[in-house]
Amino acid sequence: MSTDTRERIVNASAELFRRQGYVATGVKQIVDQAQAPFGSIYHFFPGGKEQLGAEVIRTSGATFGLLLPTIFGQSEDLLSATHDFFALAAQHLQQSDYADACPIATVALEISSSSETLREACAEVFEDWIKAGAEHFQAEGIERQRAQELTIAMLCLLEGAFIFARAMRSTEPLQAAGRSALELVKQALDS
Amino acid sequence: MSTDTRERIVNASAELFRRQGYVATGVKQIVDQAQAPFGSIYHFFPGGKEQLGAEVIRTSGATFGLLLPTIFGQSEDLLSATHDFFALAAQHLQQSDYADACPIATVALEISSSSETLREACAEVFEDWIKAGAEHFQAEGIERQRAQELTIAMLCLLEGAFIFARAMRSTEPLQAAGRSALELVKQALDS
Repeated sequence: MSTDTRERIVNASAELFRRQGYVATGVKQIVDQAQAPFGSIYHFFPGGKEQLGAEVIRTSGATFGLLLPTIFGQSEDLLSATHDFFALAAQHLQQSDYADACPIATVALEISSSSETLREACAEVFEDWIKAGAEHFQAEGIERQRAQELTIAMLCLLEGAFIFARAMRSTEPLQAAGRSALELVKQALDS
Repeated sequence: MSTDTRERIVNASAELFRRQGYVATGVKQIVDQAQAPFGSIYHFFPGGKEQLGAEVIRTSGATFGLLLPTIFGQSEDLLSATHDFFALAAQHLQQSDYADACPIATVALEISSSSETLREACAEVFEDWIKAGAEHFQAEGIERQRAQELTIAMLCLLEGAFIFARAMRSTEPLQAAGRSALELVKQALDS
C-alpha cells in the first residue's frame, strides 16, 4: 500500500482527534474518512490505534508547533506577533464553527492517566513547543528562565481559551487571553 | 431507589469524567464504581448517559466553581489568594498522581462539536465561573471589563496548565501559570 494511504490515515485521524478526541474516534471512522481499506491501519500501524495515536500526536504536534515560530517570524516585533498569534487562533476557530482548535489537548486530557504511550507522546510535543518558544523569546533578549515561563504562560492561555471558546461558541476567551499575553510580554520586555 | 444511590452515581461519574473523560466512561463502569444496580442509571436519568452527563457537568462545575471564591475569601489579599489558588491546584494534582484536575475541561473538549446538550451545560458552568470571579475582582476595586478579562485569563492559565501538567507529570506549568496570573493581578490593581 502506498505512503499516500498512510498519510491520509494520519491526516484523517488528526482531524478527528482534534474535533472529538481519541476515544470517540474509531478505526472504522478513520478508514472511512481517509478512504482507505480497513486493514491498511494494521498494515501501517501493527500496534493498532494506540501506535497510530502516538504518531498522530507527534506529527500534528510538530505542525501545530510551527505556528508560533512562523507567526513570530513574520511579525514586526514581539508585541504584534503576540497579538497576531491569538487573533489568528480566534479567526481560525470561528471559521471552523468552533471545531478546530489544538490537535493535542483533547487527547492529552483523555489519556494522561490511562495510556503511558500516548501520554509520553503528548509530553514530548509539549516540551518541544516550550523549548522552541523559549528560544524565540530569548533571542529577543528575554532572560532564559523568564522566557521559559512566558512561553508556558502563553501556551496555557491559548489552550485554556480554546476550552472556553469552543464550549461557549465565542471568541471572547481568546481575545481576553490574547490581551493578557500581551501584558505579560510587555512586562518581560520591560524588566 | 434512594437519593443516596443517585448521589453515588453522580459522584462516581464526576470522578471518571475528570480522569478519563466522558466518552471513555461507560454506564457499566459508572454503576460498578457507584455500587449501584445497572438499571438505576435509567431510573434516575431516563435520558441515559447524556442526561447524566449534563447533570454531572452542572454539579461538579458548581462545586469546582466554589474553589475560587473560597480560596479568595480565606486569603489576606488578592495577591496571596492568587498565589494560593495555583499552589493548591498544583499540590492537589500532584497528590492525585496527576489525575484530578478540572472535572469539566476534558468533557468540554470532547463534546463541544458533537453534543449540544453537554456543550450547553459546559458553557453555563463556564459563564458562572467567569461571572463569580469577575464580581470578586470588582469587589476588590478592579473595573468591570478588566475584572472579567482578568478572570478569563486566570481560568485559561489554570485550565491550560492542567493540560501540560498532567501530560508532563510536572507541577512546573502550574507554577509558571501562577506566577503569570500574579503579574496580571498586580497590573490590574496598579492601573
